Amino acid sequence: MHIDLLLTAESIVPAELAGRTAVVFDVLRATSTIVTAIAHGCRGVVTVVDTAEAQEVAARLAGENTPALLAGERGGEKIPGFPHGNSPLEYTPEVVGGKVLVLTTSNGSRALNATIEGARTVVVGSLLNARAVAQKACRLGRDVTLVCAGTQGKFSLEDTLAAGMVVLEMVEMMNPGCLCSNHHPSSLDLADLSVAALHLALAYRDNPRRAFDHSHHGRKLFSMGLTADLDWCASLNTFEVVPVVKVVKKENGYPIIEKC
Amino acid sequence: MHIDLLLTAESIVPAELAGRTAVVFDVLRATSTIVTAIAHGCRGVVTVVDTAEAQEVAARLAGENTPALLAGERGGEKIPGFPHGNSPLEYTPEVVGGKVLVLTTSNGSRALNATIEGARTVVVGSLLNARAVAQKACRLGRDVTLVCAGTQGKFSLEDTLAAGMVVLEMVEMMNPGCLCSNHHPSSLDLADLSVAALHLALAYRDNPRRAFDHSHHGRKLFSMGLTADLDWCASLNTFEVVPVVKVVKKENGYPIIEKC
Repeated sequence: MHIDLLLTAESIVPAELAGRTAVVFDVLRATSTIVTAIAHGCRGVVTVVDTAEAQEVAARLAGENTPALLAGERGGEKIPGFPHGNSPLEYTPEVVGGKVLVLTTSNGSRALNATIEGARTVVVGSLLNARAVAQKACRLGRDVTLVCAGTQGKFSLEDTLAAGMVVLEMVEMMNPGCLCSNHHPSSLDLADLSVAALHLALAYRDNPRRAFDHSHHGRKLFSMGLTADLDWCASLNTFEVVPVVKVVKKENGYPIIEKC
Repeated sequence: MHIDLLLTAESIVPAELAGRTAVVFDVLRATSTIVTAIAHGCRGVVTVVDTAEAQEVAARLAGENTPALLAGERGGEKIPGFPHGNSPLEYTPEVVGGKVLVLTTSNGSRALNATIEGARTVVVGSLLNARAVAQKACRLGRDVTLVCAGTQGKFSLEDTLAAGMVVLEMVEMMNPGCLCSNHHPSSLDLADLSVAALHLALAYRDNPRRAFDHSHHGRKLFSMGLTADLDWCASLNTFEVVPVVKVVKKENGYPIIEKC
């Protein structure tokens, strides 16, 4: 099983994802928010790239009597006129239970939507559900591409860390013991970037929160007073939920992320 | 001091290097070869991107009565008609002493030549001289961009490891003790990629050779029987030499790498 890794939304080439399992990470905060919402009973999440489209999808859902929450951020801030933001802490079971979340974010929505165009199965990953995602990827048995959203076209430490946690869990599931030896894991074919991500995971596994102090975007959110969000997003393997994208086949259909 | 990192030759934007110290890494094998040749008394190295230009430069040097060696590789193999290849082991003091090396390689030449277009000072880095390069970068005191050549447009583990060794040495020189604490090094502003490279260095510092077993290009060279080259290139801080690019100012001038 080959495990590849992409560092930014911009580096996604949908055709190269054909037949593969793709896992998308935007740890601060889009995919942590999606995982939290789904774990708290959200019926599904629709991710859209621009704000006008988000409003249109939410209005359409309302017209179909589907309870929907319109949510999003730009540059870490709420969008004017949008009732909900991109903090996972907003999405308690009381707020999100039984509803569809329509979410537009700076990097995560772009990464998710580009990935959906190419991959066979698209899974939403974060530190919150890294082990469950690794179990799902192992069960599917196909080659895997870990897709980090990055931040404005640049590498982000926290996304690659979460991808590395999935690599680490997969290595421990499929090649227990190989991490102590000098040998490359034999049944897993790790691209060089997957090896680098694995070492990030080993470095931060005992304190993932520390990686946010070392990350540019983590420090930005800290300076905006979002410490509680950072603490939440750093919590490793809190949930066993694996959100998976389901493509709704109907006129004007949109992909919706649901509980696996 | 800001320390940034580029993962491939393709991601170099010369204008973004303005005023900075750039260090170029193509560990397997171009920059390890250049460092070895300079350490062994080579007068200077000219890197060119295409083979015809390499032949032209070598002929011009011969016409000027400058003893020159024509060398290069494509896909790890010697170039037909070129008397020398890209193995650092070829460049003993007897072979290279007092001569100019004209070198064309798959990735390293492209990375070096694109970097030369933009940066204020261009230094050649490898595992062989990581500490000396870090000392030089600290002395210059300017912002630093670590430029990994990568392999055919892709991330390469060994180049980023060597860049990480330079980050690690700089952190230990400028912020001794900070690696044991939870704090981000204060006088160094590390981009997220530099932090990730630092963790690679910490993971492999006791056995850099092991990284080549985990790297795609390292395994390719191993399968070609180049074990002695791999062992040589993995040797950490063997040399104190810091090759620096000097731009020759004359008609049809070409940049030449010399001992600092």
